[in-house]
Amino acid sequence: MKSSQIPHLTLVLGGARSGKSRHAEALIEALPAPWVYIATAEAWDEEMRARIALHRERRPAGWKTVDCPLDLPGAIAAHAGRPILVDCLTLWLTNLILAEHDTAAAGTALIEACAGARAPLVLVSNEVGLGIVPDNALARRFRDEAGRLHQALATRAASVVFMVAGLPMRVK
Amino acid sequence: MKSSQIPHLTLVLGGARSGKSRHAEALIEALPAPWVYIATAEAWDEEMRARIALHRERRPAGWKTVDCPLDLPGAIAAHAGRPILVDCLTLWLTNLILAEHDTAAAGTALIEACAGARAPLVLVSNEVGLGIVPDNALARRFRDEAGRLHQALATRAASVVFMVAGLPMRVK
Amino acid sequence: MKSSQIPHLTLVLGGARSGKSRHAEALIEALPAPWVYIATAEAWDEEMRARIALHRERRPAGWKTVDCPLDLPGAIAAHAGRPILVDCLTLWLTNLILAEHDTAAAGTALIEACAGARAPLVLVSNEVGLGIVPDNALARRFRDEAGRLHQALATRAASVVFMVAGLPMRVK
Repeated sequence: MKSSQIPHLTLVLGGARSGKSRHAEALIEALPAPWVYIATAEAWDEEMRARIALHRERRPAGWKTVDCPLDLPGAIAAHAGRPILVDCLTLWLTNLILAEHDTAAAGTALIEACAGARAPLVLVSNEVGLGIVPDNALARRFRDEAGRLHQALATRAASVVFMVAGLPMRVK
Repeated sequence: MKSSQIPHLTLVLGGARSGKSRHAEALIEALPAPWVYIATAEAWDEEMRARIALHRERRPAGWKTVDCPLDLPGAIAAHAGRPILVDCLTLWLTNLILAEHDTAAAGTALIEACAGARAPLVLVSNEVGLGIVPDNALARRFRDEAGRLHQALATRAASVVFMVAGLPMRVK
Repeated sequence: MKSSQIPHLTLVLGGARSGKSRHAEALIEALPAPWVYIATAEAWDEEMRARIALHRERRPAGWKTVDCPLDLPGAIAAHAGRPILVDCLTLWLTNLILAEHDTAAAGTALIEACAGARAPLVLVSNEVGLGIVPDNALARRFRDEAGRLHQALATRAASVVFMVAGLPMRVK
């Protein structure tokens, strides 16, 4: 029972400061505006709030920003007719784990929401599994779950890129 | 004195939960059974024993599983006429270091055993060198030795793939 | 205001023990000697001094070694007419941070020096951003700065490779 490809879905993976967001933004900004920016970051403190505000100002007009720490499938469904950028799955997964949500169910709901979108959708996520096994059990769980989520999305996506130093390597 | 290529040798590298084992299994299962699964994991505790049993049950009939925490060259030589999957070199190297074996000699013996195999041989290993330098001296030693082993095998292998989100990127 | 490409600039990225230095040396040794090896490692202790001496002896005649922990742009400018290998940017950035230099200004100066070189120039650096977010604030700062430096160089370089198990994957 092989699942079919989602033709408008792109997954942008890469390490810290590898240019994922910038590449994803360029993919969406090549399409006619308005565009939807779904930000999963939660502003826990003043520093984080300042960083988020800075990111938002940096983006050109044409972007509508939606803050969505937890119900990402719902946010995608609510904007299904417009080009959407989700930045990023790593923070979303962290939020789900901290809030003790069912991450497997959330992953399935995310894929269903992606399949239901009717315009290009670009998901950004950090690749975190290429270092030494972490000492910390929560970090090990996180990288296992992130890896599983990336695999589930990559198998359905039409396009997967792995960013190296700001440059996209095409994986699929 | 360049060493020659081993035409039936494939190296599957990738991070945690990047789909290495599944890809390697698919490569071997495309060949006529019976296939040999050399598992290097040692069951240190009940949880590990359960995980190993689960993995074994998941594999289709046609696989013969051989447990081999240390003498991997010997196990390969003993099944040299059949398609072999080794999962994984990372755990094998860990076992060698913990047992205070000579890892350089073991690496050389492994390559000789691979060269002596007469059917396709797929080796799975974790890439662990793409994070921040670990604080822990043993972790630093491990990632140095893993990197050297991967290089020595990749230089001889006919095929090397780097897995990203369940998808193989061809390196060689 | 897009910056132009530096036609003689190559960036060699990769993890620990991925064969970066060896690949970079081979690129330079394919050109007519003499070649310049700019080493950024600082010998903090006896072990480090021994390692550096060993590396130096391993290299064939034809190499002139220049030790340069901090003023890398100056060292490149001083040898601008000859093939240069810089090994590595990771240690250079570490030295800059420990010496409390302005890393952004140093990065800009490095790119200007690269643009001024009149012979092939190969820069080696470690990719460190593909593991779990480090606990340590200095490590987080380091990987952010390394990522930004890599992006700034990659956007100007004519060639960027990502090393996996001693084998180059062409990124650009």
